[in-house]
Amino acid sequence: MNIDVPEAYVPQTPESLPGLLGGVAAIRGLLGGTPDMWAVEEVGDGNLNLVFKVRGPSGGIAVKQALPYVRLVGESWPLPLTRAHFEHLALVRQARHAPGLTPAVIHYDADMALIAMELLEPHIIMRHGMIDGVVYPLFAEALSTFAASTLFHTSDLAMAAADKKALVANFAGNTALCGITEDLIFTEPYMIAENNRWTSPQLDGLAASIRADSDLKIAVSRLKVKFMSSTEAMIHGDLHTGSIMVTQTDTRIIDPEFAFVGPMGFDTGAVIANLLLNYFSQIGHEKPPGARDSYRNWVLGSVEEFWNGFCSRFLALWRSEGKGDAYPAALFDDAISGIHLAREQERYMAGLFRDTLGFAAAKMIRRILGLAHNIDLENIADADVRAVAEARSLMMARSLMTGPGNFASIEDVTTAARQWNAIDPFGAKA
Amino acid sequence: MNIDVPEAYVPQTPESLPGLLGGVAAIRGLLGGTPDMWAVEEVGDGNLNLVFKVRGPSGGIAVKQALPYVRLVGESWPLPLTRAHFEHLALVRQARHAPGLTPAVIHYDADMALIAMELLEPHIIMRHGMIDGVVYPLFAEALSTFAASTLFHTSDLAMAAADKKALVANFAGNTALCGITEDLIFTEPYMIAENNRWTSPQLDGLAASIRADSDLKIAVSRLKVKFMSSTEAMIHGDLHTGSIMVTQTDTRIIDPEFAFVGPMGFDTGAVIANLLLNYFSQIGHEKPPGARDSYRNWVLGSVEEFWNGFCSRFLALWRSEGKGDAYPAALFDDAISGIHLAREQERYMAGLFRDTLGFAAAKMIRRILGLAHNIDLENIADADVRAVAEARSLMMARSLMTGPGNFASIEDVTTAARQWNAIDPFGAKA
Repeated sequence: MNIDVPEAYVPQTPESLPGLLGGVAAIRGLLGGTPDMWAVEEVGDGNLNLVFKVRGPSGGIAVKQALPYVRLVGESWPLPLTRAHFEHLALVRQARHAPGLTPAVIHYDADMALIAMELLEPHIIMRHGMIDGVVYPLFAEALSTFAASTLFHTSDLAMAAADKKALVANFAGNTALCGITEDLIFTEPYMIAENNRWTSPQLDGLAASIRADSDLKIAVSRLKVKFMSSTEAMIHGDLHTGSIMVTQTDTRIIDPEFAFVGPMGFDTGAVIANLLLNYFSQIGHEKPPGARDSYRNWVLGSVEEFWNGFCSRFLALWRSEGKGDAYPAALFDDAISGIHLAREQERYMAGLFRDTLGFAAAKMIRRILGLAHNIDLENIADADVRAVAEARSLMMARSLMTGPGNFASIEDVTTAARQWNAIDPFGAKA
Repeated sequence: MNIDVPEAYVPQTPESLPGLLGGVAAIRGLLGGTPDMWAVEEVGDGNLNLVFKVRGPSGGIAVKQALPYVRLVGESWPLPLTRAHFEHLALVRQARHAPGLTPAVIHYDADMALIAMELLEPHIIMRHGMIDGVVYPLFAEALSTFAASTLFHTSDLAMAAADKKALVANFAGNTALCGITEDLIFTEPYMIAENNRWTSPQLDGLAASIRADSDLKIAVSRLKVKFMSSTEAMIHGDLHTGSIMVTQTDTRIIDPEFAFVGPMGFDTGAVIANLLLNYFSQIGHEKPPGARDSYRNWVLGSVEEFWNGFCSRFLALWRSEGKGDAYPAALFDDAISGIHLAREQERYMAGLFRDTLGFAAAKMIRRILGLAHNIDLENIADADVRAVAEARSLMMARSLMTGPGNFASIEDVTTAARQWNAIDPFGAKA
C-alpha cells in the first residue's frame, strides 16, 4: 500500500498542537486566552488515531488526527491519512440528517488529516459504562434515530439517483478502511491467519470448527459480497459501543472514518452485535453471580428497543419523505397501490432484518477470533470465564449467520440470547 | 439538466469531418490519401448520436459523435456529451476482456465527444437481419462469451475490492444515461406519462391494466432499486440486438454509452428480451402464415444457447480466474469447502437467472408501452397484427416479472414463449 502523506503533514504532540490550532479563529474564540495557556493531553485509546483534549480558559475541544499507519499495530501496517477526509465528510452529512447526535465539527485541516470537534463532557465511551453495568435510558432511542435518519436519507428511498451516485463516488476512495473490514471481519476469522487470536486453549476447538464450517463460510462470503457491491446508503461503518459517547441524557456517535456507501444492515448489525457481546460478557463482570441479571435484561431490552425503534422511525421517514427515485411515489398514489407499497415496506424491513442478523453475527465472531477484540470480553481476567462468554457468543453468532430466517422478530433474537447464555458451552457438566 | 459543452465542441458534418480527422496520424494512415479525398456519409439511425462512415483510398472508419441532446427528441431533451467518455472507457475495457467482440477504437477526442472506430463491413445491425429472418449461427456463442467475460472480469469475483471501487467511481458520473433507464424502463411505462405511446386503441386495455397492476409495480420497483444500488459488474447497459453488428461469421457489440457498474442481469436480460420480442414479432414478418416457423425455432434456440452458454462460460471463469475478493479462495481450498462453493456457484447463477428474467420483462414492456420502441414490432404495418404480437409480449413479460421463480430453466422460458405465441390475446375468438 502506498501511503500518500502531504508535505505539510506532521503528527501532532501535546507540545505542537496549540501552535497549530492557534491559527484558527474559531478555536481561539472557543478556548479563549492565548495558545500558550492551553492544556493538551493525548487520550486516544482507539486502534487507529491520535486523539487530544485541548482546554483553554473558556472551553475545550477534542482533536483527532490520523496517523499514516494503524496505531494498534504500528508503522508496519500503513493506512492512508485520507480516512480523515472521509470521516469529515461523514460527520458533516450525519449532522445534517441526525442533528445533535454527533460531535459538532469546529475545524478540518486536510493536510494534517485532523478534525477539531466539540469536546463531549462529561460523556464517556458507552462500552466502558456497559462494562460497569450502567444503564443509559435514552441510548436506544437516540441510536435508532441516528441509524434510521442517516441510512434513510442517504438511500435511494430519499435521494435522486444522480445525487446518490455522486455520494457513492465521494466515498469510493475509502478503500483502505473498507479493506480492513473485508479482511478482518469477513475473511480472516474463517481461516488460519496471522492476525487471528483467541482465548486459547479454551476456544481452540470452536475456532477450528468455525474454520471447517462450510455453511458458515458460504454465509459470511455472501455478506462480504453484499458489503462490497450493495450501495444502499451511507453507513457509519464501525457503529459499535466504542463509537458511542454517552451520559444519562445525551448520546453522540463518533468516529465514522469507515464510512462509505454500503449495506444498511452493516450498521444496524454492529449495534446489535456489540450489545449482545456485552450481554454475554456480564458473567465476567458480576459478583456475586446473578448480580447483573437486571442489567442483562436492560441490555436485551435495548436490543429490542433499538431494532423496533429503528424500524418504526425508518418506515415513518419512508412514508413522509420517500421522495427518492426508488419506489417512485407516482407509481403508488392510488389506494390499492398504497396498500401494496405498505406491504412491500414490511418486506423491505424484513430483508434488512435478515441482513442485520448476518452482519451482527460476523461482527460477534471477528471480535472473538480475529485481530481486534472488545474489552467487554478482553477485560475478563479469568480466561475460563471469558471463554464461556465467548463460546456462547460464537455459538449464537453461528446460528444467526447460517439461519437468519429462523428469527421472525427481534424478540426471537433476545429469547435465543437468553438460551445461549444458559448453556454450558464446553459441555463439562453435561 | 445543465449541459456542459466544451468550448472546442462542434457538431460535425460530412463537410467538416475530414478536416478534423486529418490531424490524426492513425486515421490518415488507415484511410490513405489526403482528407480532401475522403468520402463521408452520415448514417446514424439510433436515438442519440451522429454516426459517420468515412472512406479513403485505402480503408474506412466509423465515427460516432455525441450531441448535447437526445437526437430522437431534439434539443428540448439535453443529454451530456460526457457519455462519449463513458462509452470510450467501456469500449477499451470490453476489448480487454472480450477481444475481437467490439469495434477497435482508433481515436478518441474528448472535446468533440467523438470516437473513431474500426468500420465494420459488411456487418449489419442484427435487428435488421432478424426482421428479415436471417439466421446467425455464431451469434449466441459470441454474445454469451461477451457477456460472461465482461461481467465476470469486472465483478468482485475477479477484481480486488479497491480496484472494483475505483471502477464504480469511474462510471458514477454517467448519471444522465442511467437516468434515462431509470425513467423510461423502470417507471414511465407503469404510469401515465407524456413519453409513453403504444398501439392504440388495441393495447389501451392492456396498458391500463399494467398501470393498475400493483404486484407488477412492486416488482419493477425492486428491479429499479437493484439497478440503482447493486454494483455487481461493469455492464454494457443497452445490450439489445440494435447494439450488435453481425455477419454470418463475425459478431461485434457496439454502443456501450449506457455503461456503468450495475446489476449483471440487466445485460443478460436485455439480450433475452430482444430475442423474445423478435420471436413474437415474426407474425408480422412472415407470409404465408407459418413461413417463419423454423426461424422462430432458431430464435428460441438462440435464447437457450445464449443463457446456457453464458452460465457455463461464467462458471468456468469463476473456477479458473476467481481471484477477486468475493468468495476468497483461501476459505474454500479444502475438498468439502470446494463442494459447498460449487453448490453456491449454482445458487449464484440461479439468482442471476431470476434477475435476468425480471430485467428482460422490464425491457419488453418498455419497448411496447414506453417512449422508444423496437422496429421488430414497429415495422409491422398492420396495427392489428402488431398489437397481437405486442400483447403476447406484454403478457409473457408480466408473468416473467411477477413470477421469475416459476421458471426453473431457460427451457421453461422458451416453452412459455411458445404458449404465449399460440394464444389470441384479445380473446375475440375464444
